[in-house]
Amino acid sequence: MPYAVVLELLGDKPLLYPAKYAHGLFFALLSRLDPQLAARLHGAPRKPFTLAPIGGRDGVLLLRFTPLDDALFAPLLRTLLEAAPEGLLLGDSPFRLRRVLATPEAHPLAGATSWEALRLAPPRNRLHLRFLSPTVFITSKPGGRTRFTPLPEPRLILGSLLDKWQAHSPYPFNPKEEAALRELFELDAELAGFHELRFHRVQAGKAFFPGFTGEVRVKLWSESLDAQEALGRLHAFSFFSGVGAKTTYGMGLAKPI
Amino acid sequence: MPYAVVLELLGDKPLLYPAKYAHGLFFALLSRLDPQLAARLHGAPRKPFTLAPIGGRDGVLLLRFTPLDDALFAPLLRTLLEAAPEGLLLGDSPFRLRRVLATPEAHPLAGATSWEALRLAPPRNRLHLRFLSPTVFITSKPGGRTRFTPLPEPRLILGSLLDKWQAHSPYPFNPKEEAALRELFELDAELAGFHELRFHRVQAGKAFFPGFTGEVRVKLWSESLDAQEALGRLHAFSFFSGVGAKTTYGMGLAKPI
Repeated sequence: MPYAVVLELLGDKPLLYPAKYAHGLFFALLSRLDPQLAARLHGAPRKPFTLAPIGGRDGVLLLRFTPLDDALFAPLLRTLLEAAPEGLLLGDSPFRLRRVLATPEAHPLAGATSWEALRLAPPRNRLHLRFLSPTVFITSKPGGRTRFTPLPEPRLILGSLLDKWQAHSPYPFNPKEEAALRELFELDAELAGFHELRFHRVQAGKAFFPGFTGEVRVKLWSESLDAQEALGRLHAFSFFSGVGAKTTYGMGLAKPI
Repeated sequence: MPYAVVLELLGDKPLLYPAKYAHGLFFALLSRLDPQLAARLHGAPRKPFTLAPIGGRDGVLLLRFTPLDDALFAPLLRTLLEAAPEGLLLGDSPFRLRRVLATPEAHPLAGATSWEALRLAPPRNRLHLRFLSPTVFITSKPGGRTRFTPLPEPRLILGSLLDKWQAHSPYPFNPKEEAALRELFELDAELAGFHELRFHRVQAGKAFFPGFTGEVRVKLWSESLDAQEALGRLHAFSFFSGVGAKTTYGMGLAKPI
């Protein structure tokens, strides 16, 4: 069951690198829970959660956490709650956990759904996302080169969501369906508009990355019901999965509209 | 010799579709000059000039014209000057030609250079362009599908400039050089930033097209001098050639910075 919870933390001073420290905190909690799992996840290219500082002021830090692996959520939250009374270390500053906001009423970026509900999301022929934190796609090129694409290219947005769905959902598309979708996303998806598109350069982990924020609409021309059902699922899933790279460092936070 | 001239036209009323009417005027002038050439160019996918309304008010219309074929410029300008006294028809409104602005001092979007000077433009490892009118790339996909990309993708910007250079310059790259450049543009060019990127939907000819405007920086990682020389040429050439599709309908007007 995909969740999005917002942790309301209280500290004495504002943080210089909230995304980096939050990443550190979560790996510390994971180590406490299961040292082997933490070590394995740390080096894994795809992590079963997203994590993003989403603001706050006057000593309050809001940290959004979406576990994508059902087995991870309850134990990790329990570990968090157990660790909270001693103070949660963000960098070297202890923070207190004031509230866990878990519903859209408590915070518009919180909420939960079931994988079954995502699978049955209504079909759509448009993706309409608001990218709330800098979003980037990292692609490997021949010769071991890595290139960043900080632009809302439809095939990259849809391809990333499909990657994440395949990796985390208990209802992945079978290889034939997946290949057909990838081809459609390449050929039949078009940018229908964008609004307030901004370029950023942000630190995520050890390096700096370019990224975009803003509102983006993508049109899928295909009239295939299978394709539109897939788009409906990915659209709803994006709220939990985020889009693109470095989603455990606050990047790629997207809200379907 | 690539030129960019700005025609200052005076009319009685503002025009609803200046780009469309300007296109019509230029083809009328071309027909007067050489009916066969006009007929051939009308159907040609690549036209040896760009044409863009660039504003004006209080009865003044500014029309920017850049001939990319040396043989076209002088005769077409002569035909224009000959036709001017009768009134130049934009749609069904006659306009008078008040001035031809031909230097950067007269108008920042006017100027001239030589192909030789473009060929010898200083090498660069960055492209820095301001897209002043909506810009779009049209790509053909398998199955006869056509897709629009209204985003400043580095490989599309550079690929379009290279296409135009190859089509119009008396110093085209040879096939081996051209292939090497296309590969570099695909692998080694990265978006370094954008500013004030806006989405538009505009009419160009019979149809509506999406497009972007704004300032864009592209970084070429290659340290090859050949590549950087090519980038220098294309950067300087963009002022005359424009970028992307429908540059005879006012789209793709770019100014190197």
